[in-house]
Amino acid sequence: MKKQIVTISREYGSGGRIIGSRLAKKMGVPYYDRQLLDKVAEESGFPRQLITEDERMAKKGFLYALSMAFQGNSGANSNYLSTNEQFFLAQFDYIRKLAKEEESFVIVGRCADYMLRDIPDVTHLFVYASEEDKLRRATTVYGLTEEDAKKIMPGMDKTRANYYNYHTGQVWGDYHNYDISLDSGKIDEDAAVELMLKYIELKK
Amino acid sequence: MKKQIVTISREYGSGGRIIGSRLAKKMGVPYYDRQLLDKVAEESGFPRQLITEDERMAKKGFLYALSMAFQGNSGANSNYLSTNEQFFLAQFDYIRKLAKEEESFVIVGRCADYMLRDIPDVTHLFVYASEEDKLRRATTVYGLTEEDAKKIMPGMDKTRANYYNYHTGQVWGDYHNYDISLDSGKIDEDAAVELMLKYIELKK
Repeated sequence: MKKQIVTISREYGSGGRIIGSRLAKKMGVPYYDRQLLDKVAEESGFPRQLITEDERMAKKGFLYALSMAFQGNSGANSNYLSTNEQFFLAQFDYIRKLAKEEESFVIVGRCADYMLRDIPDVTHLFVYASEEDKLRRATTVYGLTEEDAKKIMPGMDKTRANYYNYHTGQVWGDYHNYDISLDSGKIDEDAAVELMLKYIELKK
Repeated sequence: MKKQIVTISREYGSGGRIIGSRLAKKMGVPYYDRQLLDKVAEESGFPRQLITEDERMAKKGFLYALSMAFQGNSGANSNYLSTNEQFFLAQFDYIRKLAKEEESFVIVGRCADYMLRDIPDVTHLFVYASEEDKLRRATTVYGLTEEDAKKIMPGMDKTRANYYNYHTGQVWGDYHNYDISLDSGKIDEDAAVELMLKYIELKK
């Protein structure tokens, strides 16, 4: 098979991760998502704790952007803040190295669409769904109670948007950043996988 | 074939109209776009001149929204303004009647995604492309000079957005309003048609 890389960005509850892992399996290529962080941390020597802290901070939105903007200028905190930025760059290098070494793979999240935006033979997919469909998936597939799901869902996408917008200078979910966007409430996960295989076959 | 309706919204220069007409041909179903206006005008007795005026006004954006908001309250102009609104509603009725009469078709533009949003078996597609790809299509396919294309392109999408946002109360191009969105710079028109046929086959 010709080299094929697929990046997947997704709203929380849209099933993008499930589509990604099944697509990778069908393509017979590696699948990466959050566990990639551990590989990068291991190879680059970053303590896992700082990475978790970076994601926790992203939930705070404006505070996160502000703290990142002041990195290196903030006296006592400069070491902490620049480590987070350095870790993003380590991920950037790692993912681009994977892509340039001619390996095919599917990657979910990690701003991968931005990181690989100038590399040919990469397909960028965005997966979303209606609030009802996401709530249904969160409760029936992810195993959350309806109360918990309603509580965490808005925050999950806000965290993703903050992290993406800060690090890429672009807007998370802007369709112009993707080659194809799908409402996973209209076709199920396996159908989305079939459609993506067709897309890869058809694209220029 | 099972009843299948496809609505297509598109950025100017993305080739959405070409995709729509070829898709309709492949599906063996009627294709509608602006010429639908004439059918509605004919059936409902609206003078064609007023319709053209409605589209011209939409180019003016804020002024258009303001004039529409004041329709019926604006003294001397009330008859003119309410005619535009009435014509939108006549289109609305006509398109919904087409959809409910069990006819399969492809329709481009006319806020059709919004008009048919609650009707089952309708697939909503949005087509977009990068500025370079749209400029290339406008000059090589639509036959504009580069100078003219650069002049009119931003205004075309602004007009579409103003018209859509005013009449639907939603945001033109918001991916949540579509089932699938495609960057036509990444797959050519015929490939997009093939992909949409696959989508229709796969969807729930």
